Amino acid sequence: MENKLQALKSMLHEINDLRAAANVIYWDQTTYMPPGGGAAHGRQLATLARITQEKLREPKLRELLAELEAYGQSMPYESNEASLIRVAWRDHEKARRVPPDFQAKVKAHQSESYQVWANARPENDFAAVQPYLEKTLDLSLQYAEYFPDSAHVADPLIERADYGLTVDILRELFSKLRDQLVPLVQKISAKQAMDNSSLFQFFPEQEQLNFGRKVIEQYGYDFNRGRQDKTLHPYMIRFSGNDVRITTRVDENRFDDALFGTLHEAGHALYELGINPSLAGTLLAKGTSSGVHESQSRLWENQVGRSRPFWTYFYPQLQKTFPEQLGKTTEDEFYGALNKVTPSLIRVDADEVTYNLHVMIRFDLELDLLEGKLAVKDVPEAWHARYETDLGLRAIDDRDGVMQDVHWYDGYIGGAFQGYTLGNIMSALFFEQALKAHPEIPTEIAQGRFTTLRGWLEQHIYRHGRKFTAEELVQRVTGSPLMIDPYIRYLQKKYGELYDL
Amino acid sequence: MENKLQALKSMLHEINDLRAAANVIYWDQTTYMPPGGGAAHGRQLATLARITQEKLREPKLRELLAELEAYGQSMPYESNEASLIRVAWRDHEKARRVPPDFQAKVKAHQSESYQVWANARPENDFAAVQPYLEKTLDLSLQYAEYFPDSAHVADPLIERADYGLTVDILRELFSKLRDQLVPLVQKISAKQAMDNSSLFQFFPEQEQLNFGRKVIEQYGYDFNRGRQDKTLHPYMIRFSGNDVRITTRVDENRFDDALFGTLHEAGHALYELGINPSLAGTLLAKGTSSGVHESQSRLWENQVGRSRPFWTYFYPQLQKTFPEQLGKTTEDEFYGALNKVTPSLIRVDADEVTYNLHVMIRFDLELDLLEGKLAVKDVPEAWHARYETDLGLRAIDDRDGVMQDVHWYDGYIGGAFQGYTLGNIMSALFFEQALKAHPEIPTEIAQGRFTTLRGWLEQHIYRHGRKFTAEELVQRVTGSPLMIDPYIRYLQKKYGELYDL
Repeated sequence: MENKLQALKSMLHEINDLRAAANVIYWDQTTYMPPGGGAAHGRQLATLARITQEKLREPKLRELLAELEAYGQSMPYESNEASLIRVAWRDHEKARRVPPDFQAKVKAHQSESYQVWANARPENDFAAVQPYLEKTLDLSLQYAEYFPDSAHVADPLIERADYGLTVDILRELFSKLRDQLVPLVQKISAKQAMDNSSLFQFFPEQEQLNFGRKVIEQYGYDFNRGRQDKTLHPYMIRFSGNDVRITTRVDENRFDDALFGTLHEAGHALYELGINPSLAGTLLAKGTSSGVHESQSRLWENQVGRSRPFWTYFYPQLQKTFPEQLGKTTEDEFYGALNKVTPSLIRVDADEVTYNLHVMIRFDLELDLLEGKLAVKDVPEAWHARYETDLGLRAIDDRDGVMQDVHWYDGYIGGAFQGYTLGNIMSALFFEQALKAHPEIPTEIAQGRFTTLRGWLEQHIYRHGRKFTAEELVQRVTGSPLMIDPYIRYLQKKYGELYDL
Repeated sequence: MENKLQALKSMLHEINDLRAAANVIYWDQTTYMPPGGGAAHGRQLATLARITQEKLREPKLRELLAELEAYGQSMPYESNEASLIRVAWRDHEKARRVPPDFQAKVKAHQSESYQVWANARPENDFAAVQPYLEKTLDLSLQYAEYFPDSAHVADPLIERADYGLTVDILRELFSKLRDQLVPLVQKISAKQAMDNSSLFQFFPEQEQLNFGRKVIEQYGYDFNRGRQDKTLHPYMIRFSGNDVRITTRVDENRFDDALFGTLHEAGHALYELGINPSLAGTLLAKGTSSGVHESQSRLWENQVGRSRPFWTYFYPQLQKTFPEQLGKTTEDEFYGALNKVTPSLIRVDADEVTYNLHVMIRFDLELDLLEGKLAVKDVPEAWHARYETDLGLRAIDDRDGVMQDVHWYDGYIGGAFQGYTLGNIMSALFFEQALKAHPEIPTEIAQGRFTTLRGWLEQHIYRHGRKFTAEELVQRVTGSPLMIDPYIRYLQKKYGELYDL
């Protein structure tokens, strides 16, 4: 059995290397690639995707998994061995449904589509991306067809990112959440609006980057095992357990975009860097789902980065960095400015309370597109209409409308956004548990110390990689299934205090 | 046949994509990779090398080639089709000799070895690289064993880089060349030494980079289809016909290192960028040999970049860039400084006349190592001894001795250096032919115009990629086999004038 397990690991290592290679190419494409390089990068990504899919479907892999199945079941559920065999089966079964040539076609299209979007967004040119988005919708529907046993066309796409979840479950969850959020937004709207003009001054790029870098180093992000570059849309990407990179973007005319983007991506990176090295090179060395991943990015961005203790520690340093801009703004005022609740147009810059409304709009539009109720050509207007209904705002163009997020332009339509709201919900669940175990965490944060929190997250979440599904992880950590109550409690307490509700 | 040819091309495209992916990873490893990323990058390179080798050896590929052979022979020798089938056969036959696991092992080792060297060189720590170099020697010998029909152990290694050449041929060629060079060096040494102190002043990095960039843009290097980054050892790398990158390094205390390194790598890049796009994605879209490649890097570096007309045009601009450093140096003096002939320690900074002596030292040491006459532990001293004999100099450490070039640390021992001298010889052959066809080229260079020269090179050399072997190419372009006479004539004329011989 030892030999067979070794043979399985060798096969999985190869798959892992091919995926990592594709990640290097994707990273290059979005950071340093000259304009001419796009077509070839797309072909390379397509070839790697095809070969990866072939390897995942290999009969030899299936044989090994069958031979190892009983052995896996004889081992403890959470052992590396049992988990590896269990998760590899799942991935193999899924891969068997999707032909390698289809995977290659999708990758080639996504790469091309990304590049068109990257050029079209600054030009506000939806016409340029429309045919690509139409093809993306076609490919998304084709992908779903490989899973004909699904209850909803979006289910296979959601499951790619958030295993175990379906449209039915999410609709119910989102509806409950909306019932709690809308009254909260209304209560806050009735109050005096906060002044956040201190954030909208000129903050030179290099100082912004340096400050963000200092914070995430203190979080524990290790620049010997990662780096930060600039991209159009920030993201985190893993090449290995010792090379997890993040990207950011900087708007010199506002302070929050770069910093909170940096904290967000660093949160993703801490998760990946914290996975047990014994899982390296296997299919387990990866965050377990989009939702759990976002719980970590959002936790380090919000529960930590937008908290009072965080700014107790960092605000004096920030004032020293930007004495002219912030010398006259008190910590109280700055904390309020950072947490101003107000309807807005851009998801990634939204406050914690209205943020999920942005996600729900996208989730619903994805379903409408996949169900054939909405044509791609009509999405820009549908976007504006929903923003007017839900947030009372209408963007003046598509750049800040349907073209604001990269997801539909470098991935599928379907399953792209629910992870953010799941992440918000779970960030509160996990943070509450961490505080229960270590009530000293806020005091430590106020001293710029993050090791207790990071250690707890590593112990309970990071190190497991994909051993447990999101559902299993939530159950293990909280003792109950996914609930929205802690998240609502968190919002009510924080914004109750801020807005004197 | 059309279908079979298409099938062949598809298989070759896949191989091409895998190699390009490996190149992206190599580039990342030497430019932006954080220290922790090395091990995984090595594994990825190994996996890609193994899969590439498997694909090159596939029986299906052999079948296709066999079925297409007669068709290929029925087409004109220089047609894309005939050339593709011919070169693919050659590559396939070679790949059949070398097991994929060996390729993977070599790549993993080379990647690790490179990283050790990159850290050890600044520390002058030969002890750190010695075990890696010993393993490299072992692997080089193992590689040679896959070709037991070779006359000399180094032949298969030389053939990897310069198809058609052998130790016997090169020894004779180098010996003839040495017979011409040594008296020339002696005659020059008898003359008054030139003053090149103007080159050794403080030249700020950014200005150096900007100046080099301006020159190569004028050469025709297109930054939309490439980019320049900094690495420990400069190189050129191809990701596709529209993404050919170069790297450089800058020494702020001397002017020539960055500029001529940049011109050199840009010469390589112009070759790759000039390959006919109809060959893209096949095995033909690549410079045909190390020697021909170096003929282009050396031509743009020396025949152009160290020529009088070049500086007639660029020196006034350079003086404007560095008025304090060069305001009082005349064009004549600067041209003399750049072409000062003097024994030196560093190959890449050597003048044109003594340069080949550096290459011959390395060539001989490679043969001694492969023949078992020299142990790796003794190379540092053997290096110093040869420099004393041949150039009358001894480096004070190994950093500027055996550790100065990257080649043995990220490649095989054997076949690593002969290409430079072959390139010098061929650069003169080709440049002479270009001047015969277009006597106006020097006048144009003096006006900063390079299109006639580049056009001629593209027409006669670049566009063919690997269609012709180096031997065939030389025969086509010059009407005779490789000769050293034009190179000697070039050196005698240029340095005869400079040193009044």
